[in-house]
Amino acid sequence: MSQILVVGSLAYDSIKTPAGSVEKTLGGSANYFSVAATVLSPVRIVGVVGDDYAAQDKKVLESRDVDLTGMKVTPGKTFHWSGFYDDNLNEAQTLKTDLNVFADFDPILPAHYKDSQFVFLANIDPTLQMKVLDQVQSPVYTGMDTMNFWIQSQKENLLKVIKKVDVLLINEGEGKMLTGCSNGIAAAQALVKMGPEAVVIKRGEYGLILNHKDQGLFVLPAFPIAEVIDPTGAGDTFAGGFFGYLSHVGTRPQFEDLKKACFVGSTVASFTVQDFGLKGIMKVNKTELENRQNQYYKLLGNRS
Amino acid sequence: MSQILVVGSLAYDSIKTPAGSVEKTLGGSANYFSVAATVLSPVRIVGVVGDDYAAQDKKVLESRDVDLTGMKVTPGKTFHWSGFYDDNLNEAQTLKTDLNVFADFDPILPAHYKDSQFVFLANIDPTLQMKVLDQVQSPVYTGMDTMNFWIQSQKENLLKVIKKVDVLLINEGEGKMLTGCSNGIAAAQALVKMGPEAVVIKRGEYGLILNHKDQGLFVLPAFPIAEVIDPTGAGDTFAGGFFGYLSHVGTRPQFEDLKKACFVGSTVASFTVQDFGLKGIMKVNKTELENRQNQYYKLLGNRS
Repeated sequence: MSQILVVGSLAYDSIKTPAGSVEKTLGGSANYFSVAATVLSPVRIVGVVGDDYAAQDKKVLESRDVDLTGMKVTPGKTFHWSGFYDDNLNEAQTLKTDLNVFADFDPILPAHYKDSQFVFLANIDPTLQMKVLDQVQSPVYTGMDTMNFWIQSQKENLLKVIKKVDVLLINEGEGKMLTGCSNGIAAAQALVKMGPEAVVIKRGEYGLILNHKDQGLFVLPAFPIAEVIDPTGAGDTFAGGFFGYLSHVGTRPQFEDLKKACFVGSTVASFTVQDFGLKGIMKVNKTELENRQNQYYKLLGNRS
Repeated sequence: MSQILVVGSLAYDSIKTPAGSVEKTLGGSANYFSVAATVLSPVRIVGVVGDDYAAQDKKVLESRDVDLTGMKVTPGKTFHWSGFYDDNLNEAQTLKTDLNVFADFDPILPAHYKDSQFVFLANIDPTLQMKVLDQVQSPVYTGMDTMNFWIQSQKENLLKVIKKVDVLLINEGEGKMLTGCSNGIAAAQALVKMGPEAVVIKRGEYGLILNHKDQGLFVLPAFPIAEVIDPTGAGDTFAGGFFGYLSHVGTRPQFEDLKKACFVGSTVASFTVQDFGLKGIMKVNKTELENRQNQYYKLLGNRS
């Protein structure tokens, strides 16, 4: 088993959904990713927080198998995102984004991070994603996420990173935006032509499309959840489960490994949406993950 | 193998999609259903057309294993639907509905139809659906579809039919409307409490949810199609493939049969959306259906 390097945001979120609301709860892609990934594999984190970042919030990652050497504390406030969901829980509406200390984030890898074999570039400025990627010596497998903001404002830099990674994880709407395709399958086909060996189109409650350059398509419905409390972090914990599984396997993933990683990621994400913020995923251990995994196989009509 | 009785519309459709348009092409739920179902099983049709219904259009069903004794020809014009789809191909926008001879449709079963074992009530006025159901002596398995118009205007009568059938096939949006649930899984769970043993929530390009009162959930992504030409009839041909398979089996379906019927229905529907009107499904024979079925299993990561 090897360690996964992740770069992303460490944040406080204020979230309102039809089920209720939370104020300044711990969030950010790197937190969500790390909590999810450590169910299966150790993580090394690169990120920045302000001096308001509570000791108990740091403990969330300290209590798991996360190397925090790369977590920088800077004078000022931690990144804060505030948003809401209406009945369409597939799409967050942003009310306010306060970058705070994240605005001057310059990701420098601690020396012992540079041999990381699995690397995930969560949704941040593509120039920073590239800067992290450039510091890693010889990764076995690399992946990234992105969002509409970077597609619109930094497309050229974004395409450079996409060209360099092995797998792109992207929401369906953003995959369509990036390719100009109005069909999700067509978008998945267009995206592998931009460089990565594989792409995962995330469709929220509807599941995902995996497209592998040489092996073709795999489609997976989401694990059915009758009451979604808060979808925040579903995509980041999907990525955590996905990379947690791949790093657990340890070798360069084949198509079958990627399919299995999709199962694990979807299972992990299904826990996330059942409670606010990190609460849903925090409770999950390996046994619970395996139990739901077996339920999931059954729901899909599979025997194993 | 037994015959399926279907009641539904026989129509001319004018359709515009991002891929092009067609004028007064053959359509209607009973036509779509019958063409799809007869790939696997004979069909008996109940419906009405005007005296403008072209001989060549009647031949579409005559050339397949469809009993047309119950197709009534009435002076006047055939039902005409005109609508369009924008980039969101999951939802049709109706421009005009001319009921014409369909307005006075009174479905009387020919005597030899009354022993039908499999019965599908396509999307028509629920009082007519009930009238057909009441004329069948001892069906093995019955199913129905409906739409927002009947939910809004005839909810009480609709609920009576839903209570009597074995399986309800319904679009996700309409399932949510009928139950007041904002979540598709929750809607599937609420719908089986209204009477039917099973419900299939149709999610267009995203696939379906099957919920069985005693056996629980099954989820299936759609067969991936990168270029959808015209989604009209996808739901009706899904129903045709679904009932075609069940009637082919011939006995009262178990949960495993319903899952398999979902696979067959989805496969059939995937052909429909690849061309305008009935063109896509008209070309399909048993061998092509089986070939795509095998491709489909592979895409889902199954071996058989």
